[in-house]
Amino acid sequence: MTDEKQKSWQSVKEEALARIHSRRWKPGQLIPFEADLAEEFGCSRSTVNRALRALADEGLLDRRRKAGTRVPLYPARKATLSVPVIREDIIAKGYDYSYSLVSLEAEVPPTDVAVRLGWTAARQGLHIVGLHFANTSPYVIEDRWIDQNLADSSDVEAFSNLSPNEWLVTHVPFTAGTIAFSSLNADTQTARLLDCPSGAALFVIERTTRNNRRSITTVRLIFAPGYQIETSI
Amino acid sequence: MTDEKQKSWQSVKEEALARIHSRRWKPGQLIPFEADLAEEFGCSRSTVNRALRALADEGLLDRRRKAGTRVPLYPARKATLSVPVIREDIIAKGYDYSYSLVSLEAEVPPTDVAVRLGWTAARQGLHIVGLHFANTSPYVIEDRWIDQNLADSSDVEAFSNLSPNEWLVTHVPFTAGTIAFSSLNADTQTARLLDCPSGAALFVIERTTRNNRRSITTVRLIFAPGYQIETSI
Repeated sequence: MTDEKQKSWQSVKEEALARIHSRRWKPGQLIPFEADLAEEFGCSRSTVNRALRALADEGLLDRRRKAGTRVPLYPARKATLSVPVIREDIIAKGYDYSYSLVSLEAEVPPTDVAVRLGWTAARQGLHIVGLHFANTSPYVIEDRWIDQNLADSSDVEAFSNLSPNEWLVTHVPFTAGTIAFSSLNADTQTARLLDCPSGAALFVIERTTRNNRRSITTVRLIFAPGYQIETSI
Repeated sequence: MTDEKQKSWQSVKEEALARIHSRRWKPGQLIPFEADLAEEFGCSRSTVNRALRALADEGLLDRRRKAGTRVPLYPARKATLSVPVIREDIIAKGYDYSYSLVSLEAEVPPTDVAVRLGWTAARQGLHIVGLHFANTSPYVIEDRWIDQNLADSSDVEAFSNLSPNEWLVTHVPFTAGTIAFSSLNADTQTARLLDCPSGAALFVIERTTRNNRRSITTVRLIFAPGYQIETSI
């Protein structure tokens, strides 16, 4: 794709955005057909399509296959968050990275974890708890369960100095999953690991990863106080 | 675009994904040129382009204009979050929605708010605190500052029963902004408003909205305990 073409769909996007903002295209109403817009703007229909798709991806247009494209009455803005490997995140912030294994056990997960993994019968999983440091400060607890079939004994040995977060990235392909953001009060053990007051408000990311519909791992990342995720919308 | 074309770029995407997962395309390495892939798959180059763009949007490929397309060494997965209007969010969860104004003042913002808004000189803003309910339970505190030039006296009157969240959506176009997710411990006043124990861990969204580079509003949404945002990746 040439620079000219790229400019073209972006300028169509800007013009469409200006019409949404000026209410020439009103909330709740259908906008003109792509073919008509292409003629008006003097560009190809695929350029219009690309521009409108970009606006739909941002939640500023509502595209339905047969019902056409509308300006939504209440636009739900979409924010894209980058979910980095923990080590990369810490290094990108200018800190030295280190990792320490807290515990590693083969055990039957508690009910909430079994539900997240979709395990109906009681079975053992590999339960790994590790601590990631930024310089000498605890940054995040990684509390992870892995399907035992994925790791052989040499892998298990590797976990003494390699975080499962990194092991998974390089050893297990993953196709889809869910991610949830929430908060919790530090209990005694969490407070001790993160070196923070008991009861402190902590930011939590829970992530469950599937490969071809089979849940392979679920992790709870519990961040030290003050952590925040920021992105633009 | 016809159904057949859509199927086509998606099947190219699946084949590319399979090559990433099987490590036929290795982490850190360049993948073949789009033209060569188009020939191999027997499809147009724009179909290959669309498929690779989709994978890049998900963080599974790293596309650089001149350096070509690589499989990233450590893929940062991207998650898209929908940021809905609060009322729509509460209704979508099956609750009755109501709103109550807590306070409305014209005042000079504290430093952290002035910084978020990019206001260098001390000036008054409209400070509105409101409470959104799901059925009869407090759901979220909306603590918002608005550029005073945006609201006339009739608007200000409207805020007695219309949340600024909704007023903004329908009255002020917005083009860009930042959004941050974090957590905090409830202070006494917050705990009283949300009807929760003082010190409870609360989920917080901070959002600053610009229109043509001018900051027009910043809001802190403080959710009642138990709130979480979930999405798929």
